[in-house]
Amino acid sequence: MTQQREKWKERFGDWFREVLTSAKIIDYRYPIKGCGVWLPYGFQLRKLILNVIRNNLDITDHDEMLFPTLIPEDLIAKESSHIHSFENEAYWITHGGRNPLGIKLALRPTSETAITPMAKLWIRSHADLPLKLYQIGSIFRYETKATRPLIRVREVSTFKEAHTFHATHQDATAQINIANAIYQKIFDSLAVPYVISERPSWDRFAGALATYAFDTIFPDGRCLQIGTTHDLGQNFAKAFNVTYETPEGTQAFVWQTSYGISERAVAAIIALHGDDRGLLLPPIAAPIQVVIIPILFQGTEEKVINECQGVHTQLVKQGIRSLIDDRAKLTPGAKYYEWEAKGVPIRIEIGPRDLKLGKVTVVRRDLGTRITCQRDSLNVSDNLAEIDANLQVRAQEWMQARIHRVTSLDDAQQILNSKGGIVETPWCGEECCGREMEAVVDVRVLGQPFEVNKVDVTGTCTNCGNPASAILRLARTY
Amino acid sequence: MTQQREKWKERFGDWFREVLTSAKIIDYRYPIKGCGVWLPYGFQLRKLILNVIRNNLDITDHDEMLFPTLIPEDLIAKESSHIHSFENEAYWITHGGRNPLGIKLALRPTSETAITPMAKLWIRSHADLPLKLYQIGSIFRYETKATRPLIRVREVSTFKEAHTFHATHQDATAQINIANAIYQKIFDSLAVPYVISERPSWDRFAGALATYAFDTIFPDGRCLQIGTTHDLGQNFAKAFNVTYETPEGTQAFVWQTSYGISERAVAAIIALHGDDRGLLLPPIAAPIQVVIIPILFQGTEEKVINECQGVHTQLVKQGIRSLIDDRAKLTPGAKYYEWEAKGVPIRIEIGPRDLKLGKVTVVRRDLGTRITCQRDSLNVSDNLAEIDANLQVRAQEWMQARIHRVTSLDDAQQILNSKGGIVETPWCGEECCGREMEAVVDVRVLGQPFEVNKVDVTGTCTNCGNPASAILRLARTY
Repeated sequence: MTQQREKWKERFGDWFREVLTSAKIIDYRYPIKGCGVWLPYGFQLRKLILNVIRNNLDITDHDEMLFPTLIPEDLIAKESSHIHSFENEAYWITHGGRNPLGIKLALRPTSETAITPMAKLWIRSHADLPLKLYQIGSIFRYETKATRPLIRVREVSTFKEAHTFHATHQDATAQINIANAIYQKIFDSLAVPYVISERPSWDRFAGALATYAFDTIFPDGRCLQIGTTHDLGQNFAKAFNVTYETPEGTQAFVWQTSYGISERAVAAIIALHGDDRGLLLPPIAAPIQVVIIPILFQGTEEKVINECQGVHTQLVKQGIRSLIDDRAKLTPGAKYYEWEAKGVPIRIEIGPRDLKLGKVTVVRRDLGTRITCQRDSLNVSDNLAEIDANLQVRAQEWMQARIHRVTSLDDAQQILNSKGGIVETPWCGEECCGREMEAVVDVRVLGQPFEVNKVDVTGTCTNCGNPASAILRLARTY
Repeated sequence: MTQQREKWKERFGDWFREVLTSAKIIDYRYPIKGCGVWLPYGFQLRKLILNVIRNNLDITDHDEMLFPTLIPEDLIAKESSHIHSFENEAYWITHGGRNPLGIKLALRPTSETAITPMAKLWIRSHADLPLKLYQIGSIFRYETKATRPLIRVREVSTFKEAHTFHATHQDATAQINIANAIYQKIFDSLAVPYVISERPSWDRFAGALATYAFDTIFPDGRCLQIGTTHDLGQNFAKAFNVTYETPEGTQAFVWQTSYGISERAVAAIIALHGDDRGLLLPPIAAPIQVVIIPILFQGTEEKVINECQGVHTQLVKQGIRSLIDDRAKLTPGAKYYEWEAKGVPIRIEIGPRDLKLGKVTVVRRDLGTRITCQRDSLNVSDNLAEIDANLQVRAQEWMQARIHRVTSLDDAQQILNSKGGIVETPWCGEECCGREMEAVVDVRVLGQPFEVNKVDVTGTCTNCGNPASAILRLARTY
C-alpha cells in the first residue's frame, strides 16, 4: 500500500484527472476554463456528500435559504478589506442586453455582502438572535492562476456557506467552536482526515477577525484547505449598520460568523481513498454501494438472475443502494473492472454453482478480498460498516504519518521537499518570524493548531531562537 | 367560496404579495430588482415541489446533471434565432477583475447552447441515444418590463430544464408526448390545473419547430404559463454539428427536445389554493402538514404536552411532517391564525377535556371544519388525502368554469374583459387571422389544444368566416 502510494504520488495529478474522466464525475471540456459539467454519477456523489453536510447543519438549527447570485458593486464595496480582496477576482456584469447597467453587478465570490443587508431587515431585537442560516449554490472567482479540477475553478458550483448573527462576541466565538465541531463530524462521516489550524493574521478571510481552516494532505504530499470558519466580528455589521435592540433597550451592532465547504470535499474523498484501480468511495458517499454481477451460463441464466433479484430486493429493503449489472454484452471481468474503477465498495457475484450451494461471493473493493458465504448469513450492512471503518483508519494513519515535528528550518525543508505533508515547529508568535519561515522554506503557513491547549509548546522559535509561545504548521499547499 | 373569489380577484396582486411576506416565502427587498431571497419556509416549500419534479424525471430515466452558469457569446450566437431572441435580454459579463474578457460571457438565459456542445462530445453512435438529462438551477433574464414576484423575475432561481437527444424526429416527438405526460403528472400531483396548448408559430421558443405550453388561470382571470416543452428539431444539432453514427455506418444529425418548469410552479400553488386567510398548501407541498396545538390550563400542562408528544411521534412514524407548537407566550388563537396563514393543511388541538375523553380535535384548513374524534381512530393520512382530493377538484372546477367557447370576437372580448379565463374559438389556421384576433381582442393567443383529436372543430373561423380547421385559445396573460 505505502510503496504503491509513494510511486503513485508522482503521477497523482494525472491520476486525479484520469479518474474524474473514467469514473464520469465531472467533465471540464466546457469552453470556459475552470467551469465543469457534473456528470450523472458525479452528480449523485456530490448529492450524497451534500446530504451529509445538510443533515449536520439542519440538526444544529441552521435554516437553509437561497440568496441571489448577483451583488451590486456598492454593496461589496461597503466592507473595505472585502472589496480590496475580491474586486480583482470577481466577474463583473456591465450590461443587461445592450444597455450599460447603472451599477456593475458582481457574480458573488462569497455572500457576506448579499446576506448582511438582508439580515439587517430581519433583525430587530435580541429576540431575533441568534440567526443561523446557510445556502448551497455557485460562487465565482476569476482565477488567473492555473485552474485545477474541483480544486481551483472559476465556477465553484458546490459551495455551502453558513452565516450566523449573534448578540455578543462570546456567542459568536462559541458558534465558531460549534461550527468547527460540525465540520469535524462532517469530515469524519466522509472519512476525510484533517487538521484544524487558526490561519495566521496575514492569511485571514477578507473582513474576518480570525479564520480557522481544515486542511488535509493529498497523496502528492501537498495540503488542501477543505473548509474554513470565520469570526467576522462586527466588521460587516458596522459596514451595513446592522444593529439590534438589547434587553436594556439600547442599540448594539450584531456579531457575525461565516463558514464554508466547497466541492473540494468531493476532491478530497476521491483523492484520499482512490488507488491504481480508480475510485474507492466510502459507503456513505457511494451512489451505488453494492453491485450484483450474475455469472451466466446457458441453461441457468433465469435462475441466477432470479437469485440476483432476490438479493437486490433484500438489500434495497435495508436501504442499501444496490444495482444488478445484467448487461448481456459484457463479460463478468469487464464489469468487475468498470465498477472497481467507479469505486463501488462491494461486489456480489452469483453463479450457478453458488446458487446450488445457497452461497454468494462477496468482494470488498478496499481490500480486494473475496469471501464466499451462505446467502442466508449475508450481512452487507456489516460489510459496509467495516469498509467505512477501514477507510477511516487507513486515511487517518496515512495522514498522521505525514505530520512531523521539527526544530530546524533545514529539517522542515528537507521533509517537505521529500515526503511532503505538514511540519510543526516552535514559534515565538511574531508575524515577521512566521513570514520569514514561509519565505525560507518556500511553503505556506497553515497557522497554529486550533486546539492550542492540547499542543506541547516547548523549546525556542525555529527562526529567531526566542522562547516559543506557539506551534506553527507549515506545508506546501494547493 | 365563489363570491369570495370574485371579490378577492380585484385585489389578487396585493394579496399575492402580502401572502409571500406574511407566510415568509420569499423576500424581494434585495437591492436588485427582480431578485428574491428564499426564506426558510419558502425554501422548504420549493424543495418539496422540486422533489415532485425530480421524482417524476428520475423514474422516467432522466439523469440529473449540472452545467456551468456562464455561456460564451460565440456559443449563444451559433443558433441564429436563439441569439436574436436572447441577446437583448441576457446579462453580459465583460470583465474578470479589472481585465476586459476576450469574449463576453452571458449568464445563461436557458441552457441549450451550453448543453448541446457538451452532448456533441458524449454522442458517438446510435447506441448513445437517446440521451436524456436535466438540471435544476438559476437562469437570468434582463427583464425590462415590470417584474412580478415569482412570475417575472430577473434571476429565476428555480429552473428545471430537461434536454433530450434522439436518433430520429419520430423519437423526439414521442419524447415530447412523454414530457407532456410527465408534466401532467407533476401538475396533477401539485393540484395545479392546466390546459396544454401548442403555441402558435409566432410564439415559439427561439430555435424550436414546435412549442407546447401548460397554462393555468389565476384568480384574477389572467393566464400563467407554468411549463413548456419544445421540439427543437435539428436546429441546434446543425448549429453545433452534433452527429451520430447510424446503424448503417453513416453520420446523421441528432434531434433534440427541451422542456422546463420554473418557480412559477410555486406561484401557481400559492395563487390557486390560497384564500382570505392566507396560504393553503396541498399536503404534498406543505413543509408542515400537521400542527399540534396544546390547550394549556394550569395543573394539566404536562399531561396535555405528553399527549401531544404521543400524537406527534405517531404521525412522524407514518412519515407525516408534524410540529407541536408549544410556545408559551402565544394564545391558541394566535397560533391558529399564524398556521392558517402559513397554509398548514391540518391542525390538531388537544386540551385537558379531550385528554380525559381520549379525544382530539381535528381542524381542516381547506373547509374550516372541526371534528372531534377518538384519539385511537385518528387517521391523519386519510384526512390529508381528502384535503388533497378536495383541492384538486375545487381548483379543477374553478378553472373549467373559466374556459368558454365563443364564436364571435365581441363575445371573446366581453368574456375576457369581465370574467377573464380562456376563450376557445374556431380558427381557419392562418397566422394572419390568429394575429388579427390577438390584436382585435387585445389578448394573447395561447395556441391550439394539444390533444387536437379530442377537440370539436366545427363552424367557421371567427375572424375571416372561412371553414375552421382548428380551435384557437385566447387569454389575457402574465
